[in-house]
Amino acid sequence: MALRAVGSTYPNPPVGAIIVKNGFIMSRGWTQPAGTPHAEIHAINQIKNKKDIKGAHLYCTLEPCSHKGKTAPCVNKIIELKFSKVIISQIDKNPLVNSNSVKKLRSAGIEVVIKNFSSELKELNNIFFNSIRDNKPFITLKIASTADGKIATNQYESKWITNSTSRMVGHKLRSLNECMIVGTGTIRKDNPILDCRLEGLSNLSPDIFILDRKVNLKKNLKIFGNKNRKIYVFYSDKVKKRILKSKNIKYIKIREVNNELDIKTVVKTVSQLGYMRILVEGGAKLSASLLNENLIDEIFWFRSSKIMGNNGINAISNLDINKVDHLKKFNLTNTKTIDNDQLSIYKKK
Amino acid sequence: MALRAVGSTYPNPPVGAIIVKNGFIMSRGWTQPAGTPHAEIHAINQIKNKKDIKGAHLYCTLEPCSHKGKTAPCVNKIIELKFSKVIISQIDKNPLVNSNSVKKLRSAGIEVVIKNFSSELKELNNIFFNSIRDNKPFITLKIASTADGKIATNQYESKWITNSTSRMVGHKLRSLNECMIVGTGTIRKDNPILDCRLEGLSNLSPDIFILDRKVNLKKNLKIFGNKNRKIYVFYSDKVKKRILKSKNIKYIKIREVNNELDIKTVVKTVSQLGYMRILVEGGAKLSASLLNENLIDEIFWFRSSKIMGNNGINAISNLDINKVDHLKKFNLTNTKTIDNDQLSIYKKK
Repeated sequence: MALRAVGSTYPNPPVGAIIVKNGFIMSRGWTQPAGTPHAEIHAINQIKNKKDIKGAHLYCTLEPCSHKGKTAPCVNKIIELKFSKVIISQIDKNPLVNSNSVKKLRSAGIEVVIKNFSSELKELNNIFFNSIRDNKPFITLKIASTADGKIATNQYESKWITNSTSRMVGHKLRSLNECMIVGTGTIRKDNPILDCRLEGLSNLSPDIFILDRKVNLKKNLKIFGNKNRKIYVFYSDKVKKRILKSKNIKYIKIREVNNELDIKTVVKTVSQLGYMRILVEGGAKLSASLLNENLIDEIFWFRSSKIMGNNGINAISNLDINKVDHLKKFNLTNTKTIDNDQLSIYKKK
Repeated sequence: MALRAVGSTYPNPPVGAIIVKNGFIMSRGWTQPAGTPHAEIHAINQIKNKKDIKGAHLYCTLEPCSHKGKTAPCVNKIIELKFSKVIISQIDKNPLVNSNSVKKLRSAGIEVVIKNFSSELKELNNIFFNSIRDNKPFITLKIASTADGKIATNQYESKWITNSTSRMVGHKLRSLNECMIVGTGTIRKDNPILDCRLEGLSNLSPDIFILDRKVNLKKNLKIFGNKNRKIYVFYSDKVKKRILKSKNIKYIKIREVNNELDIKTVVKTVSQLGYMRILVEGGAKLSASLLNENLIDEIFWFRSSKIMGNNGINAISNLDINKVDHLKKFNLTNTKTIDNDQLSIYKKK
């Protein structure tokens, strides 16, 4: 249930809830988009006669909230409807909750059990905790390359190195992430839209952060065409240019390091805006700066079975690595064959 | 049975044979190293009382030989021992055989059935046919790279990019090939032995062809240390240098094209010497020239889960490809996870 919500809950964590009575599942819920019900309420809402809930057990992948955000605290509703038991996979490490709900439930006479449901779930909740406590969002790097690791020809042609099914998986990946960071190079060369073009999932297109140090990008680019999502432009604090204000575009100043926008500040700023999952689809320079700072948590590497040779553009630009010992190490966690392409999923070691 | 013989039969094809009587397998055989029994005789030799063979059926993956090479024609023995039926997967397209044995067997009153056993076997026999008819050997390229396709640092350090299990699979690959072609660059930078170091398989170390255009390599290199295998040095017909004769090293002149040894002549010459399976383990330049001429039949690509960035050495050097349409295309035929490495096997499209 929690996994169903991934990518659509910003700035809330994706949570799942199940209501059980007499050994039967009465209803299932998951976090709805911000401002609409949390998982517990989503599950409760599906039960017509609320009186039936009395005595039921509630399973939650995360401690229910005790604070009022855009919606009322879930814990009040749980007490009001007289659940007899709440089983929670993890305490919410968000300082605004942090066992408050557990205490509230217990003092209302409701039995509370805290018991880890699965390691996969722990990983999922950790993404939220890391974001809220350390401003460390979860960053996925997506690469689509030839077998020899090239993402485009020396003429910047990349259509299409991987097959159409791989590209659909790529679009699914966009729907699972709340935002994307992209460099000006990619925007200028490819003029991409960077939305999710899978039928029924277009409303899950990620918000966009563009690194446009010198504020050079023109407004007629495709990326600025979709007015239904937020677009942020990061530019250098050294730029004196006047910034054109625009309704769906926000400009944010970022400090410079070595003639680049400081990537650590970029990531922190994105996190402070509430984004927990960031997708990066290159280019090679942005991927390299994130790798250099060990900010990549996961890599989705799509490889076609084609070879380009060394005059193509590398997936990852210079990392200043001169020794095998210093290579950036990942764990290979999953592999899939997609027709004649191959997808390898790596996670931070 | 035929697959057991792969890599050890040069210049004979790897063949399998099974002797069946009354529905039971009496014995199984496969091609032994040159000068020792072919598959059929290997199977026959395992039956103590040769009189028991009378009336038995013989299954062969390739038409038995009718000509005298280093061993006597198998077909005579089959007739002498009074097999009642011979089932053959494919006629031997070698002009020296080419249905001769089938005719001989039939005129001796033995029933002969020709029926393809499997497509895998057809592929195996084709390697022999292509070699003997068109001097087109089967070339396997082995690459050991980082996830981003780098085979060494800019300091030419490559120990070890892939893990020890991957490297063992690499050694197994050497045992399955009859020879290797290697460039001077690799020999100079790595000073490799290029033998098979798996216990019990060291006698299957491939013979070596070195492309040493200007005859620059010193005799104290490790590659020249093993006196039990044949080493050939290809050098340019434009070189005037005196060639030092050596007992286990043969020098062969090859014509030059654009200041390189002509790779097509190299491959043809290796084939004319009877080699059917060639392994190439790089370097990047040799791999590129073979790819350019579409001479690579199969790629074993071992990828570690490490990233080097673009100052590493590419697996494949320049192919002069500027368009996605012109990429060298392969079929992904198999993938394996080797601990934290990944092996992808590609075949010519």
